[in-house]
Amino acid sequence: MEKKLGTAPYKGVRDFYPDDQAIQNYIFRVCREAAESFGYEEYGASILEPAELYEAKGNEEIVREQTYTFTDRGGRRVTLRPEFTPTFARLLSARRKTLLLPLRWFTWGSLYRYERTQRGRTREHWQFNADLAGVPGTAAEAEIIFLACAILKAFGLPESAYEVRLNSREIMNYILSDLLSLPPETAIEAARLIDRREKVPKADFEKNLAAAVGEKNESLLLLLYSKNFEEFASRLPEREKSTAGVAEVRELIARLEEVGIGNVRFDQTLMRGFDYYTGMVFEIFDTSAENPRSLFGGGRYDELLSIFGAENLPAAGFGVGDVTLRDMLKTYNLLPPPAGGPDLYLAVAGEKNLGYANDLAASLRSEGVRVAVDLSQRKIGDQLKYADKKGFLFTAVVGEEERESGRLSLKRLKDGREFAFSQTAGGEMVKEMAERLKNG
Amino acid sequence: MEKKLGTAPYKGVRDFYPDDQAIQNYIFRVCREAAESFGYEEYGASILEPAELYEAKGNEEIVREQTYTFTDRGGRRVTLRPEFTPTFARLLSARRKTLLLPLRWFTWGSLYRYERTQRGRTREHWQFNADLAGVPGTAAEAEIIFLACAILKAFGLPESAYEVRLNSREIMNYILSDLLSLPPETAIEAARLIDRREKVPKADFEKNLAAAVGEKNESLLLLLYSKNFEEFASRLPEREKSTAGVAEVRELIARLEEVGIGNVRFDQTLMRGFDYYTGMVFEIFDTSAENPRSLFGGGRYDELLSIFGAENLPAAGFGVGDVTLRDMLKTYNLLPPPAGGPDLYLAVAGEKNLGYANDLAASLRSEGVRVAVDLSQRKIGDQLKYADKKGFLFTAVVGEEERESGRLSLKRLKDGREFAFSQTAGGEMVKEMAERLKNG
Repeated sequence: MEKKLGTAPYKGVRDFYPDDQAIQNYIFRVCREAAESFGYEEYGASILEPAELYEAKGNEEIVREQTYTFTDRGGRRVTLRPEFTPTFARLLSARRKTLLLPLRWFTWGSLYRYERTQRGRTREHWQFNADLAGVPGTAAEAEIIFLACAILKAFGLPESAYEVRLNSREIMNYILSDLLSLPPETAIEAARLIDRREKVPKADFEKNLAAAVGEKNESLLLLLYSKNFEEFASRLPEREKSTAGVAEVRELIARLEEVGIGNVRFDQTLMRGFDYYTGMVFEIFDTSAENPRSLFGGGRYDELLSIFGAENLPAAGFGVGDVTLRDMLKTYNLLPPPAGGPDLYLAVAGEKNLGYANDLAASLRSEGVRVAVDLSQRKIGDQLKYADKKGFLFTAVVGEEERESGRLSLKRLKDGREFAFSQTAGGEMVKEMAERLKNG
Repeated sequence: MEKKLGTAPYKGVRDFYPDDQAIQNYIFRVCREAAESFGYEEYGASILEPAELYEAKGNEEIVREQTYTFTDRGGRRVTLRPEFTPTFARLLSARRKTLLLPLRWFTWGSLYRYERTQRGRTREHWQFNADLAGVPGTAAEAEIIFLACAILKAFGLPESAYEVRLNSREIMNYILSDLLSLPPETAIEAARLIDRREKVPKADFEKNLAAAVGEKNESLLLLLYSKNFEEFASRLPEREKSTAGVAEVRELIARLEEVGIGNVRFDQTLMRGFDYYTGMVFEIFDTSAENPRSLFGGGRYDELLSIFGAENLPAAGFGVGDVTLRDMLKTYNLLPPPAGGPDLYLAVAGEKNLGYANDLAASLRSEGVRVAVDLSQRKIGDQLKYADKKGFLFTAVVGEEERESGRLSLKRLKDGREFAFSQTAGGEMVKEMAERLKNG
C-alpha cells in the first residue's frame, strides 16, 4: 500500500465534526419544533429517485446540467434528488386515495446538484421542507409563510432582518403568454431573463429582454418596473385587474398583515425556476448588507400530481437550506454556543478499579447522567486535564479508597467546588449524585 | 405529458410515511441517548465519498460487486458510502494532530449496497455507528460492547433475546497464515468459507474447505469445532496458548462479566468480512427463533489510518442497522405506539374568523402548544371529524361569538369533556389554556 489516500471529502460536500454537527442539529431542531407547533408531521424518503421523476416536469436547466444521474448495475437510471417537491408529490400520489386530507408534512435531508463550487454553493446541502396539501387558496399560502416566519422568529431573528417577497405565477404567465402572446419558448426565455434580472447590469438585462421578446419589450418593462403592486395592477388591461390572480395577491398580503407580518413586498420579477408552480411564489430574503440572499423559497403547485396520473391536489410548500441559514445566523451572531460537555468524567486510579468505575457509570447513566470513564491508565493528573479540555462539568477519581469505602467526591470544574457523597443504608447515593450532576 | 410516471420509489429503497418516520426517529433517539450517556459526540459526513476510499482497503467483494460507484460530470469517481468506518478514519486522519484523544463519536445515516433485493435486504439502509479511538486493549473493546448492550436494554429487550459473539482476528490470522502456513489468497478464501459456514450445509462447508486448504483441513476443523474458548485454546500449539490474542479474549470476557454481561460466547467461526479488523471482532445476534440474525457488528481496527499515511491510532467500533433492529423490536412487540396527534385543532366557523383563529394559534404556539387551524371552510362537523381521525387531543370552534367575546371552549376528544376559558383582565387566558392543553 504505497500510495496514500487524501483525507479531503468528495469535492463540494462537507464533513461535520462534532461542533458543526451540533449546529446542524440545532438548525433542524428549531425548524422541526416550529413545524410541529403548526401540526406538521415528519416524513422521509431516499436520496435515490428514478431519474424520470425529474425529467417529467421540472427545471430544465437542472435536469440538463445539474443533476447527479447515473445508471445502476441493473441498468436503471437513478438520480440523487436535487429537490424535495417531486418526492413529496410521489408519496402523495402513491396513497392518493387513503391519505387523510389536508395533510401537513415536513422533512429534512440532503439534496444534490452538480454546481461549480464557490462561496455558498455546495454540491450537497441540507434542506428543511414543509408542505401543505389539500387546501386551495390564499389561506394555505398564508400558513406556509407564517410557518417560514415562525422559524426565523424561533432562531431569534428580528423582522427587520428579512423580507417576504411574493409574486403570482398565474399573473406572470398571463402577461407573457396571453397579454404579450409570446410563443411558449420565448415566454420561458423571458421568464428566465426576468428571474436573473438582479444578477446582471440593468442595460444588459434590457438588451437581452428586447432581443428575446422584440417590440413587446416596452410594455413588459413598464410592468416590471412598477413600483408596487397597486401600480403594477393598474397597468394591467382593464379586464385583468379584477381577475383571480390580482385579487389573490391582495388577499394574501392582507392575510399576512392580519397576523402581523408586515415586511412583505410584491415582486413581479420573482419567477422561481421550477415549471411546476401554478400560483403564488415567494422567497424570503436576508436583507443584511453582508449577505443579501434568498433563504426560503416556495409556492403553490396544484398540478404536480398529474405527472403520476393521479387526481390533482392543491398544494403549497417551501424549502430552506442549511448553508444560507447558517450564514445568516452567523451574520446576526445567533449561532448556538458550543454544547457543554457531558456531565461527569470518572478518572480511574489503577486498572483493578475500572470494573467498579464502569459499574458506577452504568448506575448513573440509568439515572439520566452522561458519564465517560477513563480507560487510558494514564496519570490521574493527565486524566483530569483531558476532562477539563473536553468540557466535562464534573470529575471524580475512582481508586482503591473509593471502591472500598463506597464514597465519592465530585468536583465541579467551573469553580473547583467539591461535593462529597457516601453510600447510605438506603442506597440513595447514586440518585443523590445524579441530582447534583444534572443540576450542574 | 402522456406517459404517466410510476409512484414506486427506486428499487430497494423505502419511503417513510409519517408513521414509519416516527419509528425511525425513535430508533435513532434511543441509540443517540445511549451513546450520549457514555459521553459520545455526534458527527456527520456526506453519503458521497471518493471511490478510492473503498478500493484502498476493505471488503473486496463489496468493492467488486456491491458498491454504487459512478463518474461525476467532472470525471471524478464517486461512491455512495457502503459503510461508515472508512469515513470515520478519514475524518480522524484529516485532524490527526489536533483532535483531543481519546475520542468517542457516533453517527446515524444511510448506507448503500447494490444487493439482490430480498427479505431484510435493502439497497439503502440506515445505520447507527459508534467508535472509540485512542485507547488500545480490551477496556475499549469492552466499552463498545457495553454501549451496544445498553442500547438493546434501552429498547426494552431482555438479555435472553440476544447473545454477544466474539472472536479474535489476531488468533484466526495466526492460525491461517502462521500455523497452517496458507498462502495469502488461500487464507482469505478459507476465512470467507468459515464466515459463511452457517449459511451452507455442513457437508458442503467441509468439502469446500478441504478443496481450499488441502490436507491441513483436519487440524483447522478441529479448531473450528471446538465447543468453547478453553477447548479451542487448548488445541492451539503450546507456544500460542499464552500469547496476547488468547489472553485478550479471556480478559475481555471477564470484563464483560464484571458489568453483568453474561450472554457472551466465543465463536471462532465469526470472521466479519472487512479486511481492516486487526483484533477482536464481535456481533450481537438476535437469538429468537423467528428472526435469528446478526444485529450489531464491529471490532478493533488499529491500522486503518495507515491508508492515509497518518500515524496509526487504536480504534474500535460497531454499527447497527435500522432494518434488523426494527424487525427485532417488532418480534418482541417493542415498537413504540403511534405518536399522539398534536394538541389542539381549531375549527373555524366562517372565513372572516380565520384571522382571529390564526392569532390565537400563534399565541398558543409561543406557549409550546401544537395547534393546527382548519383552512377548509368545510362544515364544522366535517372539520371536527377530521380532527378526531388525525388524533388531535383537543378541539375548539372559533366563530363570531368566540371572536367577539374572547371566550373559548376546549373539548377533550378522549372523554368529550369541555373546558371553558375566558379572557380576564390579566390576559392569562392563553397561558391557562396552554397549561390545560399540555397536560392532556
